Amino acid sequence: MAFVCLKDYEEKAAELVPPDSWNYFKYGACESTTVDLNSQCYKKLRLVPHCLRDVSRQDLCTSVLGFDLPMPVGLSPTGSVHMAHPEGELATARAAEKAGVIFTLSSYSGYSLEEVAAAAPSAIKWFQCYIYEDRSITEKLIRRAEEAGYKAIVVTIDSPKTRTSYPVMRRFVSGSVKPSSVRIGNFEGPLSSDYRLHVHNSSRTWDDGLKWLVELTNLPVIAKGILRAEDALNAIRVGCQGILVSNHGGRILDTTPATVE
Amino acid sequence: MAFVCLKDYEEKAAELVPPDSWNYFKYGACESTTVDLNSQCYKKLRLVPHCLRDVSRQDLCTSVLGFDLPMPVGLSPTGSVHMAHPEGELATARAAEKAGVIFTLSSYSGYSLEEVAAAAPSAIKWFQCYIYEDRSITEKLIRRAEEAGYKAIVVTIDSPKTRTSYPVMRRFVSGSVKPSSVRIGNFEGPLSSDYRLHVHNSSRTWDDGLKWLVELTNLPVIAKGILRAEDALNAIRVGCQGILVSNHGGRILDTTPATVE
Amino acid sequence: MAFVCLKDYEEKAAELVPPDSWNYFKYGACESTTVDLNSQCYKKLRLVPHCLRDVSRQDLCTSVLGFDLPMPVGLSPTGSVHMAHPEGELATARAAEKAGVIFTLSSYSGYSLEEVAAAAPSAIKWFQCYIYEDRSITEKLIRRAEEAGYKAIVVTIDSPKTRTSYPVMRRFVSGSVKPSSVRIGNFEGPLSSDYRLHVHNSSRTWDDGLKWLVELTNLPVIAKGILRAEDALNAIRVGCQGILVSNHGGRILDTTPATVE
Amino acid sequence: MAFVCLKDYEEKAAELVPPDSWNYFKYGACESTTVDLNSQCYKKLRLVPHCLRDVSRQDLCTSVLGFDLPMPVGLSPTGSVHMAHPEGELATARAAEKAGVIFTLSSYSGYSLEEVAAAAPSAIKWFQCYIYEDRSITEKLIRRAEEAGYKAIVVTIDSPKTRTSYPVMRRFVSGSVKPSSVRIGNFEGPLSSDYRLHVHNSSRTWDDGLKWLVELTNLPVIAKGILRAEDALNAIRVGCQGILVSNHGGRILDTTPATVE
Repeated sequence: MAFVCLKDYEEKAAELVPPDSWNYFKYGACESTTVDLNSQCYKKLRLVPHCLRDVSRQDLCTSVLGFDLPMPVGLSPTGSVHMAHPEGELATARAAEKAGVIFTLSSYSGYSLEEVAAAAPSAIKWFQCYIYEDRSITEKLIRRAEEAGYKAIVVTIDSPKTRTSYPVMRRFVSGSVKPSSVRIGNFEGPLSSDYRLHVHNSSRTWDDGLKWLVELTNLPVIAKGILRAEDALNAIRVGCQGILVSNHGGRILDTTPATVE
Repeated sequence: MAFVCLKDYEEKAAELVPPDSWNYFKYGACESTTVDLNSQCYKKLRLVPHCLRDVSRQDLCTSVLGFDLPMPVGLSPTGSVHMAHPEGELATARAAEKAGVIFTLSSYSGYSLEEVAAAAPSAIKWFQCYIYEDRSITEKLIRRAEEAGYKAIVVTIDSPKTRTSYPVMRRFVSGSVKPSSVRIGNFEGPLSSDYRLHVHNSSRTWDDGLKWLVELTNLPVIAKGILRAEDALNAIRVGCQGILVSNHGGRILDTTPATVE
Repeated sequence: MAFVCLKDYEEKAAELVPPDSWNYFKYGACESTTVDLNSQCYKKLRLVPHCLRDVSRQDLCTSVLGFDLPMPVGLSPTGSVHMAHPEGELATARAAEKAGVIFTLSSYSGYSLEEVAAAAPSAIKWFQCYIYEDRSITEKLIRRAEEAGYKAIVVTIDSPKTRTSYPVMRRFVSGSVKPSSVRIGNFEGPLSSDYRLHVHNSSRTWDDGLKWLVELTNLPVIAKGILRAEDALNAIRVGCQGILVSNHGGRILDTTPATVE
Repeated sequence: MAFVCLKDYEEKAAELVPPDSWNYFKYGACESTTVDLNSQCYKKLRLVPHCLRDVSRQDLCTSVLGFDLPMPVGLSPTGSVHMAHPEGELATARAAEKAGVIFTLSSYSGYSLEEVAAAAPSAIKWFQCYIYEDRSITEKLIRRAEEAGYKAIVVTIDSPKTRTSYPVMRRFVSGSVKPSSVRIGNFEGPLSSDYRLHVHNSSRTWDDGLKWLVELTNLPVIAKGILRAEDALNAIRVGCQGILVSNHGGRILDTTPATVE
């Protein structure tokens, strides 16, 4: 089989990845309405080209937070990549290194941030984290990221609560599947998957939370999960150097708008 | 099977409820266009969350007509619930009692309003009724509801005439089904189902009808079935203390807008 | 089988009517885009009822051109009804007579206008015709209609040229079907179906055509086939007493708007 | 089988044309989104006729660049027509000659422009070409076209880069198909199909490219591939005598708007 577009990779992945892991990647929150919207809405966009511009030198180079990139592309943080392939985040970090684009490591990586940094030493690496109930967990992760050469902190701010898909929820409720122990490289010992549901601090606000984190580190901080203009302004106000417009892949709250909308 | 969303319950009900009863619940007026719209239109709504608000204390408490509720939810009046399950309205009233939400008993309940009141003594119970041709029927029902501890009267005002679904209509017309005798707990003796078609008083107006009822009782009166702003104002004018925006589940008149519209 | 809506009759007709005749009724011009639109567009309309109006006396009576009708309904002219049932226009005229609504006879009726008049003597009968190349044909038809007690003349003005459906066209082109001789009650001898394609006068205009016809008769003249406001005004200007908004059932020109639009 | 609309011809062609050639004609760029849009968008247009205009003389005659045409129709340049039928462009040129409409020969014709001119001597022939990296190729083609009696030059300006369909791309990538040698009548020797990818000059602009070509020839020059009003103005500015609004059949860039939009 030949791979010429994203759908080709998706179809092959559906064959190769173990069913339970595939379900984890495939489904979004509840009915996956927003997961579907995320790709459908691209179909509604129209390219209307200008003719006879000089396009012999096509230069997609850009610079983000001072980093020079060959194209305006970066890998968003993706949890538990090792569930799809044993090399997991080591492999995706190396791919980003090779392409020269930004790699953002999820704090729920299968490999520790130090292992990933060692695997892709010259990649432009950012580190994603949450503000935990116990803020010292967040602080320790950031210190380790600074030490390991990560260049920015991406704080996910759209998940005060999490929600899983109806298909997965049905299997938990029916008892046919037990909350599994997922290897989480950045924490000591295995973490049961329902642990995650509780560690996020849902009382955090712009000033009592994100601002604290901005002041904690000299690394630039990027707020991920913004869907409203007013929240982009909030991010600037508390000192963030960037935002990521995102609906978390439709995995946290169903029926949010498509990212491209 | 596990139940994680409304559709799961609906699918199970389709298996458990006897086919004739299920048809009664399933179909709306004529072609069920509005029944379908009622759920489809929710899919078009988009949630656009605000980030980093303090959501650690999620309080859905509200107060309706002076009653404190743990969440803004109430059970709308549903006729003939006993056709779906032998315990019928006794069971739904108990469920509402347990959840602390409002229970509205249909006058076409399988159990009498007194039986339901006895089954769920501490539920917040409202009573739904129509303005009958013979107003003394309405008055007697309201007196009984007052006596039995119902706290508000919900008057359905959108059904001067009723209409059934095409599938059900075809079976009546073809003679393969006779109008059945449905047990109606609030009336003496069984009531043939076509009786209902005639008892509603289609000559009633805001002033010669609803106003009369408002003055008849000290209980708050709520007008159910409003689809136009001007009718909301009419309800206020004649002394109602609330309205229920409703298309009667698409069961009375097909091609009305979805409730959420 | 029971008949509770139009679709039920349509499905039964598809069984009973001979296939060739059914194709004649079923298909519109070219791809039947407008035929489909004509019914689909009704689905988009929404009824938004007013509550608590006095509807105990439902009076649909109206008056059209001085004729009192029990409801605002009339039968549009339909050609070759005898192809669907041997009694054809005799039966539909009798049905209209019984219901008290307007019956409009197509000039391409299977029965002569005199036969139809005799079959339904007290029906409110209108007569539909075209302005033919040879105007004396039109004049003779109108004189006969006047004599036979028809009360208005409906002039179809949307068919300077006719077009058939692609499925029917394919069968003619392939030679598997010969243009048939259809019995046309109002003309002497059988009329071959391709005759019709030529008799209409495509040079007629409002002033040199419809105005001539208006002046020819004391009967009120109604212009059928209007889709533009300016043409409604034209009809008034030349002395018509009514218009019929119509796309000819989508049978003459495909991709015109739905009538209800 | 009878042929009464374009779809009939398309379906027959799908049977007759060898599969590889058919794929070449059938698919557009990437996912063929714009190929589908090109026909779907016609379905959304509505014809709203005026009644009672004199249409007895239907005259579709028009004049384009001084040429009298019986109808406003012309054949757009289509590459490799000989892949669909051995007579290829000779046959399509003869058909245009017979109908009296414009025939535009693609420079990627299976037959040389001289052969086509000889086959249809009295057709109104235009010649399509690109501005090649090596401008002398373009110049030679234009001189030959002038000599052979072509009456206008159509310059395709929307393809600085080309892109094939995903289905075709997959077959190339998988190695199951080798870039084929397509006979190209206007060039010496066979031209490998990937040659085409490189010859177009993507550095050409309105002033350094199209203007050069306009000044090169006394024939009128028409810019093909315009989708923006500003580019129509650019074409006029550099001396073009016409434009062709086109998305290249959706074959160069996917998700451009439908031509009729």
